[in-house]
Formats: sequence, C-alpha cells, structure tokens
Amino acid sequence: MTRIDGRTADQLRPITIDRGWSKHAEGSVLICFGDTRVLCTASVTEGVPRWRKGSGEGWVTAEYAMLPRSTNTRGDRESVRGRIGGRTHEISRLIGRSLRAVVDYKALGENTVVLDCDVLQADGGTRTAAITGAYVALADAVGWAQEKKLIKSKAQPLTGTVAAVSVGIVGDVPLLDLCYEEDVRAETDMNVVCTGTGHFVEVQGTAEGEPFSREKLDELLDLSVTGCAQLDGAQRKALGG
Amino acid sequence: MTRIDGRTADQLRPITIDRGWSKHAEGSVLICFGDTRVLCTASVTEGVPRWRKGSGEGWVTAEYAMLPRSTNTRGDRESVRGRIGGRTHEISRLIGRSLRAVVDYKALGENTVVLDCDVLQADGGTRTAAITGAYVALADAVGWAQEKKLIKSKAQPLTGTVAAVSVGIVGDVPLLDLCYEEDVRAETDMNVVCTGTGHFVEVQGTAEGEPFSREKLDELLDLSVTGCAQLDGAQRKALGG
Amino acid sequence: MTRIDGRTADQLRPITIDRGWSKHAEGSVLICFGDTRVLCTASVTEGVPRWRKGSGEGWVTAEYAMLPRSTNTRGDRESVRGRIGGRTHEISRLIGRSLRAVVDYKALGENTVVLDCDVLQADGGTRTAAITGAYVALADAVGWAQEKKLIKSKAQPLTGTVAAVSVGIVGDVPLLDLCYEEDVRAETDMNVVCTGTGHFVEVQGTAEGEPFSREKLDELLDLSVTGCAQLDGAQRKALGG
Amino acid sequence: MTRIDGRTADQLRPITIDRGWSKHAEGSVLICFGDTRVLCTASVTEGVPRWRKGSGEGWVTAEYAMLPRSTNTRGDRESVRGRIGGRTHEISRLIGRSLRAVVDYKALGENTVVLDCDVLQADGGTRTAAITGAYVALADAVGWAQEKKLIKSKAQPLTGTVAAVSVGIVGDVPLLDLCYEEDVRAETDMNVVCTGTGHFVEVQGTAEGEPFSREKLDELLDLSVTGCAQLDGAQRKALGG
Amino acid sequence: MTRIDGRTADQLRPITIDRGWSKHAEGSVLICFGDTRVLCTASVTEGVPRWRKGSGEGWVTAEYAMLPRSTNTRGDRESVRGRIGGRTHEISRLIGRSLRAVVDYKALGENTVVLDCDVLQADGGTRTAAITGAYVALADAVGWAQEKKLIKSKAQPLTGTVAAVSVGIVGDVPLLDLCYEEDVRAETDMNVVCTGTGHFVEVQGTAEGEPFSREKLDELLDLSVTGCAQLDGAQRKALGG
Amino acid sequence: MTRIDGRTADQLRPITIDRGWSKHAEGSVLICFGDTRVLCTASVTEGVPRWRKGSGEGWVTAEYAMLPRSTNTRGDRESVRGRIGGRTHEISRLIGRSLRAVVDYKALGENTVVLDCDVLQADGGTRTAAITGAYVALADAVGWAQEKKLIKSKAQPLTGTVAAVSVGIVGDVPLLDLCYEEDVRAETDMNVVCTGTGHFVEVQGTAEGEPFSREKLDELLDLSVTGCAQLDGAQRKALGG
Repeated sequence: MTRIDGRTADQLRPITIDRGWSKHAEGSVLICFGDTRVLCTASVTEGVPRWRKGSGEGWVTAEYAMLPRSTNTRGDRESVRGRIGGRTHEISRLIGRSLRAVVDYKALGENTVVLDCDVLQADGGTRTAAITGAYVALADAVGWAQEKKLIKSKAQPLTGTVAAVSVGIVGDVPLLDLCYEEDVRAETDMNVVCTGTGHFVEVQGTAEGEPFSREKLDELLDLSVTGCAQLDGAQRKALGG
Repeated sequence: MTRIDGRTADQLRPITIDRGWSKHAEGSVLICFGDTRVLCTASVTEGVPRWRKGSGEGWVTAEYAMLPRSTNTRGDRESVRGRIGGRTHEISRLIGRSLRAVVDYKALGENTVVLDCDVLQADGGTRTAAITGAYVALADAVGWAQEKKLIKSKAQPLTGTVAAVSVGIVGDVPLLDLCYEEDVRAETDMNVVCTGTGHFVEVQGTAEGEPFSREKLDELLDLSVTGCAQLDGAQRKALGG
Repeated sequence: MTRIDGRTADQLRPITIDRGWSKHAEGSVLICFGDTRVLCTASVTEGVPRWRKGSGEGWVTAEYAMLPRSTNTRGDRESVRGRIGGRTHEISRLIGRSLRAVVDYKALGENTVVLDCDVLQADGGTRTAAITGAYVALADAVGWAQEKKLIKSKAQPLTGTVAAVSVGIVGDVPLLDLCYEEDVRAETDMNVVCTGTGHFVEVQGTAEGEPFSREKLDELLDLSVTGCAQLDGAQRKALGG
Repeated sequence: MTRIDGRTADQLRPITIDRGWSKHAEGSVLICFGDTRVLCTASVTEGVPRWRKGSGEGWVTAEYAMLPRSTNTRGDRESVRGRIGGRTHEISRLIGRSLRAVVDYKALGENTVVLDCDVLQADGGTRTAAITGAYVALADAVGWAQEKKLIKSKAQPLTGTVAAVSVGIVGDVPLLDLCYEEDVRAETDMNVVCTGTGHFVEVQGTAEGEPFSREKLDELLDLSVTGCAQLDGAQRKALGG
Repeated sequence: MTRIDGRTADQLRPITIDRGWSKHAEGSVLICFGDTRVLCTASVTEGVPRWRKGSGEGWVTAEYAMLPRSTNTRGDRESVRGRIGGRTHEISRLIGRSLRAVVDYKALGENTVVLDCDVLQADGGTRTAAITGAYVALADAVGWAQEKKLIKSKAQPLTGTVAAVSVGIVGDVPLLDLCYEEDVRAETDMNVVCTGTGHFVEVQGTAEGEPFSREKLDELLDLSVTGCAQLDGAQRKALGG
Repeated sequence: MTRIDGRTADQLRPITIDRGWSKHAEGSVLICFGDTRVLCTASVTEGVPRWRKGSGEGWVTAEYAMLPRSTNTRGDRESVRGRIGGRTHEISRLIGRSLRAVVDYKALGENTVVLDCDVLQADGGTRTAAITGAYVALADAVGWAQEKKLIKSKAQPLTGTVAAVSVGIVGDVPLLDLCYEEDVRAETDMNVVCTGTGHFVEVQGTAEGEPFSREKLDELLDLSVTGCAQLDGAQRKALGG
C-alpha cells in the first residue's frame, strides 16, 4: 500500500525548520510539515504573571491560532466572533503543557516566554508542527535571554527537548504524520508528544469511528516514538547541534 | 501501601448512580464517585442543528460546568466573566465525543440530545464521572424518545456503552480513580474512556512532572481497563440490566 | 376551592432545609419548596472589594443561576451565550439586598461572604427559596468565621433573620407560595421579603394581567407576612434554635 | 419640615413633557421631573419578534440607558464595557412591563414599538420619569401607526394610561418624588406604577436601612397614588386631552 | 443651483452652541448644525491612565455614540450588542486626536478630560459637530479646573482652537456642510479639522463613487477652510471671546 | 539628507509581490514593503450577505489583523481580549472601501470576496502594503471565479486598479513610504490610496505634532501620487501585465 502522497506508512512528510524568520521576536521559526506551515515566535518578557510573583520561578505559555484562510474553506476570525473556540483553547493548552514539561522554572528565573503559533497554511498536523517548531523558538529565546543576562542561573532552563507527531489508523493501517486528507478518513487519530529521550509528555488518542483495541493502540504508540525521534533529529540539526 | 482514603491501588471509590433525579429532564442522573457529585441531565429535542438538517441523522452534544463553590476555593462564574474557560471547553468536547462514539445517528433520526453535566461537588475525576453518568442519562433519554415515537427506527440508537475513569502515577505507583488530593500530587495523570467491550474511545495521558515511560503507560492502561469494566457493571445495574 | 396540589390558599408547600450539603463551602444548604430545589452555598474570604478597603466593614453579595435543565424546557447556558440575562441580574441583586438588610458590616469586619444560589430544579418560587436558604447558609458561614476568629467583633454580624415568599392572585383568589403552574396563570405576582420580626425588606408586586386594586394588594401583603413567619420557623428549626 | 428644594412632603417637582422633540421618531418626548431629563422615543416597525410571528399580536419593549455624564460622576459606557449592568437590565424590564400593562396586543396587530429612554441628566427618579414619558411617546406612536394604517383594528391598542412615581422615607417622613439627595438618604425607597384609574401595575419597595413596617408601607402607597394621579393629569394635558 | 434646504454651496447650516447644558459636567455644550444635535460633555478627573502616571502630563480622550433613534431608522444599541462598531470606534478616535492637537499636556498637568459626544439627533455631519462642540466643552472644563486649582501651571493648556466641517461633491459640485440627504448622494465625502489659524489637523477624504481628481480635492480643501473659519467664529462668540 | 535606511525622500522601499503563496485561497499574495510583510488572501464564496440577496450584485469586504509578535513588542491577541480594537476596525474598513472603489458589483454578480490581510511582520506602512497586496489577490480571485464560471458577466468586475502608500513629514521634510522609525518621528502622517489613473480613492492625513499648512499638504499629495504610480507598476508586473 502507498499513501496519497506516495509515502510509506512510517514516513514523515518533508520537514523544514527555518529559524530567525522574524526580525522582532527573541526566537522565531517557520516550520513546515509538508504543506502545513506554522509560524512560531517566542517572546521574552521580564517578570511573571501576578500569581507567580516573588517565587523566583519563570513561566512559559502558548497561544495557537489559524489564519482565516489557512484552511480549505475560510473560517471566521475568533477576534471578530469575540470568543475563542474550544479547539483553539485545547491546542493552546496542549502546546503550553508540552513545552513546560522540559522547563526548569527556577533556572528560568522570573521571566516569561510566550510562544505564539500561528498556522499560515494547514494540511493536517498543525498542532504537532506547532509544538515541534515552538520548541526551537523557545530554545532560541532562552539563548537570547542568557546572552542578555535576563537569565542569571547557571543551570540550563531547558531540561530536555520535545517534539510531537500525529499518528492514526486509516483503512485499518497505522500511519505516521497524517496529512489532511488522511486525517479526515482516519478511524483513530492520536497526537503524541515525546522528549528527545523517548519518554511521553502527552498521549491523546481518539476513536473517530470504531473504538480501538489495545493492539492497535500499541502499534500507534510504536510509530509515534519513531516519528518523534526523527523530528528530534531535525530540531537538533536546525539548532546546529 | 495504602491510599489516603484506605483504598488499594486498583480500587474505585464508592460509586452511586441515582436515576430520575430531576422531574423535568428526559434522562437525569446524580452520579457520585466518592465525594465527587455530578448532575447529568439529557434533554431531547426534535430536529437537529442547521448544518445537519435533512440528513436523516441525529446529533448528541454535551456541556460541562462546575458550580462556583463545588471546589475547595470558590471559582468565578463563567457567565459572569462572559467567557468559557479552556478547561471547560475541553471537557465539554471530550464528553460529547465519548458519547457520540456509541451513537448510531441514523437510528437516532433527526433528534438532538444535549447532555448537561454540572458538577455539584468536586473531589477529582469530575470528567470521568460526568461521562459515566451521562451515558446512563442518555440511555434513559433514548428510551423515552422511543416510547414517545420520536425515534422511529427499529435499530438501536446506542451501539454500545461507555464509561470513563482516571488513572495516575503517585509516588511512582499507578493508582485507579484519583481523588483530588492524589490528583494534585500525581506525576502522570490519564483519563481513559472505554466501551463495555473494553475498547478505547479516548486515551488522554499527561505528564504533570517527569515524562513517563512506555512501561508505566502500559500499567496505567491495564488499570484503566479494569476500572472501566467495573463502572460498566455499575451502569448496567443502575439501568436494571 | 382547592389548589392544583391540594393545598389551601394560605398553605406553604413542604419545606426542607438540608444544612451542610457541601463539604467545601463554609455554609451550604439544599432548600426545597416542594419540587423547587436550590443549592445555596456561602463562601467566606478575608478582605473586601477594592472600593471598601480600609473601611473596617465587610461585604455580602449573591449570585443566582439556573441549571440549564432545571426547567421544563432546556435553557441556554448564560456562560455559553457570553452574557447574563436581565432576570438573572435582577434576582441576584434582590438576594444580595435582602441579606444585606440584616448584616452589620462593622461587626462582620473586612470579610466578604458570597452567596451562590443555584437552582437544581425549578417549580416556581426559586428566588424566594434562594433567599430563605441563603440566610441559613449565611448564618452557618458567619458561625464558621467566628470560630476561625476571622470575625473578631463581639457584636453579632447578623442583626436579624430574613425569609421570602411569593404570593399571587389566581382566578381572583390570593394564594401563598405559588408553584409553577399557578405562577403562569397568576394575574398578579408578588415576592415579599420579611425579617423574623415581620417587617418588610422588599415588596415587589407586578400585575401580569389586570392592574390590581389596593384591597387585593392588602390581602397579598397579609398572606405574605403569614408565610414568612412560617419560613422563619423552619429556618430556626434547621439552625437548631 | 421643608424639603431640600422647598417642597412639601406630598409635592411633585415641576413636571414638563415636551412632545415631538425628535424629527425622526414616531413618538418622542423630553420629560423633566425637576432636573431629571429623559428623552423617550418610540419606534414603530412592522412585524414582531420571531417567537410571536403569525399570532396576530403586537409587541412593546423598552430600553433604558444613562448618558455617561448624566450623573454627578462620570460612569463608564456599557457599550465600552461590553455588557449591560444589572441596574440597566432591571429598569429596562420594568419600563417594558409597565407599558405592556395597558397594551391590547390584538388591537396593536403584528407591529412592534420600541421605547428608548435615555437619561440626559439624572437627579433621582429617572425610571419613573422614563415610564411617565414613554407612555406619552407610545401614545403618539400608536396615533401615527393608526394614521398610517399600520394598525388596522378599530379597537384602541392602549387600554389605559400609566404613570410612575418614587416615594420614600427620609428621616422617618414619607416623601413624594425624591430628588437625588433625598434618595441617597432614604431609609426606604419605593417605585410605584399606576394606571390612570388608580390601580397598581408595579409596586417595588426596598428597605435601604431599617426594614419597614406595614404602617409606613401604607403611607407610602397612599402618597404614590396621589402622585401618579397628578402625573396622569400632566400626561393628559400634554396629549391635549 | 440651490441646495435641498436652500443654502448656497459654501454656506453652513444654522449653528447654535448652547453652553452649560448639563448641571453635572465640568463643561457641557448642546451644539446644533441644522437638525444635527450633539450633546458634548467634558468630565475632568484628577490623575491619568496608568501608562502615563508620574509623567507630569495630562490626557484628553473622547467617546462618541448615537442614541438608537437619533437616526431615521432605529439602530441597535452597542451596549446591547456587546460591542462597539467600527464606525463608532473610528469617530471616537478622530475626536480625541483632533482635540489633543491643541492640548499642551504639561500645562494640563496630571489631569484627564473625557469628552462624551452623544448624538441626540442626526442629520449629517455628526462627527464634525461633535468636534466643534467638544472644543467648547473642553475650554469650559479647562477653565473650571484652573479655577479649582487642579491645573496649577501658568501656561495655557489649550494652545489653539479646533473646529471641523464636512465637504463633499454632489452632482459634480463641491458643497460645504452636507446634510444627510446630500451626504447619501455625495460622490466624494471629506471631513476636515482645522485650527483657528487655518492649519490642518485632520483631512479625511473618501471617494464614495468615482475616484476624485486633484483639482476637485483642491476645491474641497478650499471650501473646508472657509467653513472652519466660520465655525471658529461661532465658537469664539459662544465662549464670549 | 539621507534617510535611516539610505533612501532618498521620494524613494519606496524594495517592493516584492509573491503571488500564489497559499494553496487554498482563490487569490493569495505575500507582499513586502521592505521589512513589512503582509499575507493577503482572497476568498470567493457564492452568494452575498442577507441584506444584498436578490440584488444581482456582489460584495467585497476586508479584514486586517496583526500577528501578536509582528511588532517589536508583543501585543495581546484581539481574540483573547474578546474584542477588536479601534485601529483594527479602522484599517479593515479602509481596505474594504479602497478595493470596492474599483469593483463593478453588477459584473461581479452575487458572489462575495473576502480579503484577509494578516501582518506577519510590521515595519511601518502595513495598511498601505495590505491594500496594494489585496488588490493583486483580488485580481487573481476574480480571474479564478471567471474561469470557474461563478462570474458570468462579460463585463470586467474590476474597473481599475488601486495601490496605497504612506507619506509624512519628518524633520520638516516630506518623505515617501515611511518605515517604522520614521513613522514614530513624523509630525504629519498621511495614507493615500490612488487608482492606476492617478485619481484619489482615499486621503487620510493626520497632524501628529504641529498642525500642517496647505503647502505641506500639497507636497505630500504630490509625493503620494508618485509612489502609487510606482506601486501600480509593481502590481502590473506581478500580474504579468
């Protein structure tokens, strides 16, 4: 069996990570998973939200959004509707949690990093591309803050790396990194966030059609770990490591 | 090792499912997982949302909310703040997806069921109690609609059952059905939705502290399947099956 | 003439006041006026709103809401609509004013009590049940705050008691404590809040049909005073007085 | 005893009713109760809200608002805050109910009249001035609609007249038509809406300080009936009756 | 050619400026440009917005709004819709910028003046009437603040005067101060804000139909300067200068 | 005198117009005015807003937004704040009006084109870049709709071309196409929208410091016409004309 775009079941789409895309942000990355393009910027500010003041600890948070015509059909702007939809909320929270899993707040000191992940073009896997790109933007922002002496600790604020990939079952076959057409047809859809050491930060699997068995779940988890390892390589290469 | 409340690692809290709690709703259940109390009502209306009209298919959706003082510290009302928070959105969507996994829209016909899950008292596991209770309320509502001939199909609108439970790792030990105090201290936290046949509808695992290994993930999955099976029994008993 | 539910014109529905319903709140009451069930919780916090800081005086406020399926037909959630309706605003303000009528702010000290009155099931008289139940929850919360030494004054923060009841004219006959079916058919509808000494805190009468005469108004006032006196007895009994 | 502005206890402030203030509205009145100035416009549109279509019956509704600097201290605009406050909601609803008490929906036919009551300058009694002025604007709008044959019924759409006045107890003395300074100091504050025949449409009394006795309530009601009768005269005179 | 209302092409409508319209505001003006009536109030408060604190400089801002029935057809209230429309935003910003052009923030000291411009009746040119009237209200408010010693500087806080007028091309003829009927038919519509010395503060021209040539633009600018000079005279006269 | 970036006073920044940037939109352009980058997409849908149905005429509208970190300091998302700011509203309206100036609604037929202009990186002149880019995206979208036979008219829906540029006075010198640093220091700031034939669609000039004289205004207008002519050339080249 070959996939719509000719890939094998366990193959990622072409991944590009373009650092320093924006001249303003402390870290910025245009990441592509095939035709999915997400602009990830990291903004550093001194100080932390009120509930954290005086703790000596930093904070990292994320906001995700899609441009109205990043998708096949134009979607209304959430700013115009006056409220953020459930899906947006959910993904913003997922990105924030995923990155915080590798942050040492003490080492970061009372600084805040906001990761903005804006989908310029969507073709499946926008949230996983966002996490993978945001990690690189965060690494750059942390480097900038260390250079500017905003971060004073000798300990590294990043205790590891994170990347994310989608997996799913399409026509009973587990596939890695679904494009939009595959995603629409998937019976099961799973997003997995892993550290560079192959441990799990998040596992979110959903039966879109038939509920899935433990065996299928195991196959999907195996596939996701492989995918995340390759993304980890791409991140290291982009960061010149 | 014993737990805060004396349970063994694989033991659920006392579960009660009180059907017909409300005189108005077509299905209503007050479900308790220990001190967690959730009122689940199912409201049936003829017709479906506009985007589904003329399809011959029904719709099932859910809304979750917490009373302001269901928690230890009073939370602001989302109606007063004028917007729904990310967590609320996320859980409402999870409940809706979980129930839709066992709904045959054709058999339901052009009818809509809204499940309202309002947390009257929270002590951990509110979303899993909500899903487990909402299934029973949905079953009652479907029965009501069949009796009233709103549902005309001979096929059963419910193709199976669903229940949900939380599992987590506390002090390196996998535990079933976390109460609030355990939840706060958990390194990993997972919510699992299963059908009565032991297949997965949703798996959502999050590392709150250390990222978790595949072995720990496997143990948590095993534990959750056991828990869901017991909840399935409680649902059947409540439904007089 | 007998009423729909067999009561005499000047008879209350069965009243139950269940204290300590919630394990979290400083005061909590599930109050029933027949099939109307309202959960009233009192939350105590140290400090007062900004405009009152440094005054040495406390504050008491209330929020009222209905669960979406507390009524015969499901209502939209105000949190989902993003705004609070006029009726909700009006009743929240009424409850707050009614309780503040018996509060000595100086004796309360710079503490705030928020009364949340959530209607779990509605069958007429939800605002009067809310006021009557909220008073008991407030009394418990004040007792708790005195025990915890949050309230330091020797003076009693509560200078009296309050209870509320609805009265109305149905088929030209003045009736006490209208249930929903009566309320719908009432030509005049009045809510009265009284202290335990029989003085008025609020009188709100509305002609739903024909404007009403002074004679009818006088009869309604008489009836309401009788009803409030009985509710005052139920409150005292619940509080073990 | 004389009052701040030299009136006797049962004396209204100077009342002026200026019809046809606006060139656009079907009915428009600038009404003054002393320094309180409210612009009331009545807008007629063919058709009724969706829930009333096909009933053959009309609808009357009202919206009340204060200009930001109508008061001594500037208030924020509700449009800027993005939500309507509780007091505004409450008064808008009161005005609407008061006018609907004298409307025969059948005779009005499927037409809608919206009464906008905007307070240009506030000095106590804005809601009672609004009701009194809105009645006159409504009468003009009905006349206009009859002339334009929008209203086809031979029956009169207005079955009576309404006017409203505030009364209150200041320094233990019942006073009619409180100005702002009196209102602030009032122990009890009551708004009464009467028909031209002296029947009650609304009675809303609130103890701002001490709860009040039945005797005081009776005195206030007497006073209010006198005041409404005088306002009824002013309305008739303005309408050239 | 004569205009709808008999004016010549370069003639303003009758202008009236009624100072001290409101008893509460520090400056207040009811300004009329023909049938356009705008109530402009200036509210002075000590202190400045947070971002300006400690600068020793004051702030001037403006809010514009239309009463719902100031227009031929009733418009929804922005407070009811829960959001301010683009046009309202745009005009509020224009008024604020126009007045700030003649304010010396240092001389004003840390005081804030808010100009509220509420359109009571609209017949074209509401924004230009608002600017012209707001200047007079501002001048009165500054005078009040000097008298009350809120403003301590010896320098004049107002460095000049501002007035505004609309011009437009109707049937290929440049016209001054368009009324509503002309405005609707205008091919080009321009609002110009000038100082009393004939310099430009704002020039906003829009082609409603055909794009316009440089020649026509020049004619419109000439006309607007003439109109502003006349308005400047009316302002001076109103201010007794 | 040379400018910050070495340009002469009447020189544009390097302009690039990258067509077909997005695979989903019917027209899409990434336009750069130096470091200012705006993604303009044109979305075509059959049908028109309700108020235009049955007219046989089409509609064109625009929405402008900035990514949160397109600027030097991160701005809050308008979707998160729940409301669109005045500046955003104003620019969206300006873009829409500018494009509609060259649209023949009849020729467009009952189709709607929405132009989304999202600023990916801001360095002054974002609104003028947006208009200039949106025109090209619109031209592509119209071409697409003609090919798909959504547009059936033989008449050209675009009656001309539009481009926009900013001009301003910095240190008393009129400059073309201000970058951010110049814009901040400008005494006068003007945005001009011209057709390809050199006529004006919009002229918006604002005195940021000193009010400006007619002579300076004339110089700015001259400069803007030159700039627009060059942009017109760049548009034609991009469209292969």
